[in-house]
Amino acid sequence: MSDIYVVGVGMTPFGRLTEVSLKAMVRQATEAALNDAGLQKDSIEAAFFGNASQGHMEGQQMIRGQIALRDMGISRIPVVNVENACASGSSAFTLAVNHLKARAGDIALAVGAEKMFSADRSRMFSVFDSALDISCAADVHADLLRMGEGVEVPPGTTSPKPYSVFMDVYAAFARAHMKRFGTTQRQIAAVAAKNHAHSVHNPLSQYRTSYTIDEVLAAAPITYPLTVPMCSPVSDGAAAAILCTGAALRRLGLDTHRAVRVLSSVIQTGSDRNYTDVRNHLTVHAARRAYEAAGVGPRDVSVAEVHDATAMGEIIQIENLGFFEFGEGGPASERGDTSIGGRIPVNPSGGLESKGHPVGATGIAQVHELVTQLRGEAGPRQVDGASIAVAENGGGLYGVEEAVACVTILGR
Amino acid sequence: MSDIYVVGVGMTPFGRLTEVSLKAMVRQATEAALNDAGLQKDSIEAAFFGNASQGHMEGQQMIRGQIALRDMGISRIPVVNVENACASGSSAFTLAVNHLKARAGDIALAVGAEKMFSADRSRMFSVFDSALDISCAADVHADLLRMGEGVEVPPGTTSPKPYSVFMDVYAAFARAHMKRFGTTQRQIAAVAAKNHAHSVHNPLSQYRTSYTIDEVLAAAPITYPLTVPMCSPVSDGAAAAILCTGAALRRLGLDTHRAVRVLSSVIQTGSDRNYTDVRNHLTVHAARRAYEAAGVGPRDVSVAEVHDATAMGEIIQIENLGFFEFGEGGPASERGDTSIGGRIPVNPSGGLESKGHPVGATGIAQVHELVTQLRGEAGPRQVDGASIAVAENGGGLYGVEEAVACVTILGR
Repeated sequence: MSDIYVVGVGMTPFGRLTEVSLKAMVRQATEAALNDAGLQKDSIEAAFFGNASQGHMEGQQMIRGQIALRDMGISRIPVVNVENACASGSSAFTLAVNHLKARAGDIALAVGAEKMFSADRSRMFSVFDSALDISCAADVHADLLRMGEGVEVPPGTTSPKPYSVFMDVYAAFARAHMKRFGTTQRQIAAVAAKNHAHSVHNPLSQYRTSYTIDEVLAAAPITYPLTVPMCSPVSDGAAAAILCTGAALRRLGLDTHRAVRVLSSVIQTGSDRNYTDVRNHLTVHAARRAYEAAGVGPRDVSVAEVHDATAMGEIIQIENLGFFEFGEGGPASERGDTSIGGRIPVNPSGGLESKGHPVGATGIAQVHELVTQLRGEAGPRQVDGASIAVAENGGGLYGVEEAVACVTILGR
Repeated sequence: MSDIYVVGVGMTPFGRLTEVSLKAMVRQATEAALNDAGLQKDSIEAAFFGNASQGHMEGQQMIRGQIALRDMGISRIPVVNVENACASGSSAFTLAVNHLKARAGDIALAVGAEKMFSADRSRMFSVFDSALDISCAADVHADLLRMGEGVEVPPGTTSPKPYSVFMDVYAAFARAHMKRFGTTQRQIAAVAAKNHAHSVHNPLSQYRTSYTIDEVLAAAPITYPLTVPMCSPVSDGAAAAILCTGAALRRLGLDTHRAVRVLSSVIQTGSDRNYTDVRNHLTVHAARRAYEAAGVGPRDVSVAEVHDATAMGEIIQIENLGFFEFGEGGPASERGDTSIGGRIPVNPSGGLESKGHPVGATGIAQVHELVTQLRGEAGPRQVDGASIAVAENGGGLYGVEEAVACVTILGR
């Protein structure tokens, strides 16, 4: 268990923020986190900046964090730019934790930001596709289709030109999970309905509309079995967290009742093309390391934010994290076990599906939600008695190409 | 002083390697570092990958390190992609040091790689320009020109369309330094002549041709007072270092005589537009922190590799690092104080000017040279009695925009 604390969190609303610059979003999230901590910007001794696509979207390559933070007067500190696909934000968070554990400083900022909307919509899609090593894409795609063979695909529900290659991958995972464990499209829809219902109570969420399971099933298809409300949208947004050592917490006289301890925070990379070997999923390994370092197990967890880039992702991850047996994620979701008020509430924020998924911000936005929950400040979406929380953020082409999993465990 | 060691270093030759892929370069450098350490690839527990331009050059955004390392069978470990402009490699190195200091693992790989040559030459230039925040470029440029006003610029020696905005910036710095301290073009040429002479003995150097000072002065002008041999070239290349904790060093029975201790490794960010305030240069602050953490001072240093993106950069940095008083860098260089055999040899590898400057690899290539020197394995370019070594690597638009300085101190 580390002696590192999150003392402030902040984020922008997520959504289509075409009038707001990346800099302005970084400033808004960082100022909110500083205010939340009761600290001035001069107190930040190091910054870790997560962003995946600004080079592609805006042509700003390199020293992205320096450019963004200078604008609000933060300079003369170490700033590191981290790019780990959809796990860029959580990678920045883990680096901040390790920076403090290494005693390279006492107070650090982890901030992630992404602008994904553009006038030219095709630009956005290709940034995702460019994360894929082109040389093996066709090969991987064929493997994926094989995994899910034998699942009946209703005519007209598999887009010939998918929304994004990622959704196509998740759909293939879903069909493989259905074939192996009997997971149903209705169970997957239950995850989406639950997350959209949660987000109604989150004022920072991109969408705040609830759907019944039947409405999710009847929505426009992406690629079978996924429909639009089961998939995370394109989003702009930023999120920030201020971390400090126990020594700084005492020295600065910060409110220890609002400080949340980082029990552990790990990054893991791996390849998971062999999806049939579910117990060897990258996240299983990352979670094991995180639980060991934190000295807790899945049964101790009161609330979690997981990487539901699609509703299927949530089912896979709640199994990988040990909340449910392999194959039990779907039935558990349909029973309401992961709803607020259920056995282990998952994605009380609305998750990537509804709160939104501005890639570089997502991992830190998860921390934002869990810190809010652990402090008991989540209002109508509060999970009663939240004491141990898990954030799981993944990047890369999950289960296919090289991927990144970050698991952070927080506690009071 | 940390209990972290560099136990293996490796690099590709630097140069125009159009037939070699980025993956192949990463493999070659990493395998060389593993062989040097006497370790297998399975022993690597985490990797930090520095790269600045692959997104721009090849369209490979995100999870770049994962894609490159998977190819040689390295996966299921944390991999973090770091992008800090020309300091990407040293940033990756510092993160690896802090990862080990945080006890997040015992053995880590820092690897940096860059492919800068392309069929379309304009593509390369724009990657640099894209690091500059466009909104203030004109403003900055006007400031720079003012700094050097009053220095006579021979007609025809200032390119109307500079080789790169970076060279234009360095030329403006040079004119400001000349105006303030009386630094001469001949002194700047002496730095270039010295570095090209050093590289004759470095088989991995991009160029291995010596120049007299007069030949440097007579070479094609870039922007006054810089000529071609005073400027770092476009380069492809990769460099890797294997780091471990003292505990791992003993547990693995590695050769302690060849292990080099990391006395300190710091990253600092800052803005240095006010070049007249030389004692407040970003690198001055970074160096102070690095010396304090290492428990040594500039007088203790036996050899250094510094960021000579141009010969003028070396003069600025040897002053910032405290090897010479401000304004004394030029005369000291002309006297031979920084040549092998001089008071404090600088850039025995040939430096960025001659060895080459594949952006993401540069910081780790500096460590490669210094480890080789500290072990006494540098052959005809060996600095006698090398015991304390400093690597200084900078990124961003030095002295203009937000910039990054990394200073690492190594010792036996």
